[in-house]
Amino acid sequence: MAESNKDFIMGVDLGGTKILAGVFDDKLECLGRAKKSTKSQRGAEAVVERIAACVLEAIDECDLQPKQIRGLGIGAPGACDPETGVVRFAPNLVWKNFPLKKDLEKKLNIPVFVENDCNIQTLGVYEKELKAKPRHLVGIFLGTGIGAGIIIDGKLYAGFNRTAGEIGHMVIEVGGPKCGCGNKGCFEALASRTAIFKRIEAAVKDGQKTALTEMLGPDLEDMRSGNLRKALKRGDKLTEKIVEEAAEYTGIVVANIINFLNPEVIVIGGGVMDALEDDMMAVIVETARDYAMQGTDTGIEIMASKLGDDAGITGGAVLARRLTK
Amino acid sequence: MAESNKDFIMGVDLGGTKILAGVFDDKLECLGRAKKSTKSQRGAEAVVERIAACVLEAIDECDLQPKQIRGLGIGAPGACDPETGVVRFAPNLVWKNFPLKKDLEKKLNIPVFVENDCNIQTLGVYEKELKAKPRHLVGIFLGTGIGAGIIIDGKLYAGFNRTAGEIGHMVIEVGGPKCGCGNKGCFEALASRTAIFKRIEAAVKDGQKTALTEMLGPDLEDMRSGNLRKALKRGDKLTEKIVEEAAEYTGIVVANIINFLNPEVIVIGGGVMDALEDDMMAVIVETARDYAMQGTDTGIEIMASKLGDDAGITGGAVLARRLTK
Repeated sequence: MAESNKDFIMGVDLGGTKILAGVFDDKLECLGRAKKSTKSQRGAEAVVERIAACVLEAIDECDLQPKQIRGLGIGAPGACDPETGVVRFAPNLVWKNFPLKKDLEKKLNIPVFVENDCNIQTLGVYEKELKAKPRHLVGIFLGTGIGAGIIIDGKLYAGFNRTAGEIGHMVIEVGGPKCGCGNKGCFEALASRTAIFKRIEAAVKDGQKTALTEMLGPDLEDMRSGNLRKALKRGDKLTEKIVEEAAEYTGIVVANIINFLNPEVIVIGGGVMDALEDDMMAVIVETARDYAMQGTDTGIEIMASKLGDDAGITGGAVLARRLTK
Repeated sequence: MAESNKDFIMGVDLGGTKILAGVFDDKLECLGRAKKSTKSQRGAEAVVERIAACVLEAIDECDLQPKQIRGLGIGAPGACDPETGVVRFAPNLVWKNFPLKKDLEKKLNIPVFVENDCNIQTLGVYEKELKAKPRHLVGIFLGTGIGAGIIIDGKLYAGFNRTAGEIGHMVIEVGGPKCGCGNKGCFEALASRTAIFKRIEAAVKDGQKTALTEMLGPDLEDMRSGNLRKALKRGDKLTEKIVEEAAEYTGIVVANIINFLNPEVIVIGGGVMDALEDDMMAVIVETARDYAMQGTDTGIEIMASKLGDDAGITGGAVLARRLTK
């Protein structure tokens, strides 16, 4: 596997809790991965150390040398400036104006390209899953929070402040439940993992029965998306109802996007989707078709991403491939 | 004023109730206008006759000849295909797949360019009011219904089915008031002229007092946006409350657009805005800034269009100027 040319590219998914690194060939096949906890509480410099270690581990895993890596794309959870490689604002990491590109290039001696995590995931879905065919694409990622990436005319669209895609804070229920951002009725406060868990916890406190308390105890400790999937398999009515509601809200947002931006494809991914696709997808599509204006959704595809956890590292590799050709 | 070169361009605003035509010079100064009722019930061919008559009247008003007009841009209230000049679907005119460009060119012997009315209004605002400076712009038009136009990288963005900008059917209050489209809680069902009038009528039926009944009688017959302006000047509390609510809903939609698409400028126009700008604009801006995610609205301008009724004809002239240069 060891070759002398710079035939390889890498993607890194920098999250609030974990770092994932992957080595790819030019056909976007993943040759090897490595994973590390982020430990953002140790400060930005320590996180850069951990990213570099994770990257080197993935390279070693593939029996390659760093000099064989042509470029590395990294997705960060916040507003990024791809031209300078600065992470302007990443609340989960408590970073502000951090020069990620510069610091990481110094450690690795590999060209580094920085983008927002949802943008990079959308790019991964676009080139790997959709073979770069649609002109316009919106990727929605349902996880602890909710974000989106937008591709217009085959290029990432970032907007004026490079913050486009903050779909989690689209208000869809004026006066609805309170969101972490301070407003009420945001999509994220209705359909993120956090929102789903909150609704289940409230229902349990309210005396409603669910298989989840049998699985996790009365306080629902350490609840994860996988627990919901198991409860659904056991036919748990409460979980069914709350997951279905989250899917309906997601479908309404998909319709809002179809009506407003009318992209060719809307793809839905993220941890919640990976775990609950079988239960959510049909409801999302049905609701979206129902709420889309007549004639606006003809031929528009609404699909679930199959990339799962690999969306971020794949997108990072796509970005590196685009920028080092 | 009579010149022999093709120095002039025209814009036509085709609405459900009236046709407006304007002659422009290359600096987008309007030299003359004409106006006619649409009379869509007489059928599409008759409407084309009336458009042609209105166009010729405007040309004559400027002491010009049709051969001096280089091109004509027309905005139609529905989904249009600019390449073929076909109006695919215009519910207000009861048109389906009507070849507007072909039929109108036959009558006038002037090159005709067809676009959606909100797109064309946005184009007018973009080039005449904003001197084509912003990269990305969204124009929202509050009237009997609500629509929007999107400019990305200086070009009209139409989306996959050429229906982008249907902001009137963005759901912002799940389970809210019923909309003409069949869904509930659409922006249009909360803040259009129709929605505002409905809320006032319901309040009056409910026994609430308003200066509007003194002005228009107990059935509020022939209520117009101008009546609301007069009632507001008289300090009418009910009108104040309902107009303020409509402005708040508009501000929330502006924030949704800032969060999702992050354009450089959001401009608001249309008949409701023209009549009620003094009362609505401050509330719209305040609400939008409040609901926009921290850091996303920095430097983004939210403004009212000053073009008023001329937005459509100006945009038509811009389109003709762009396509006949």
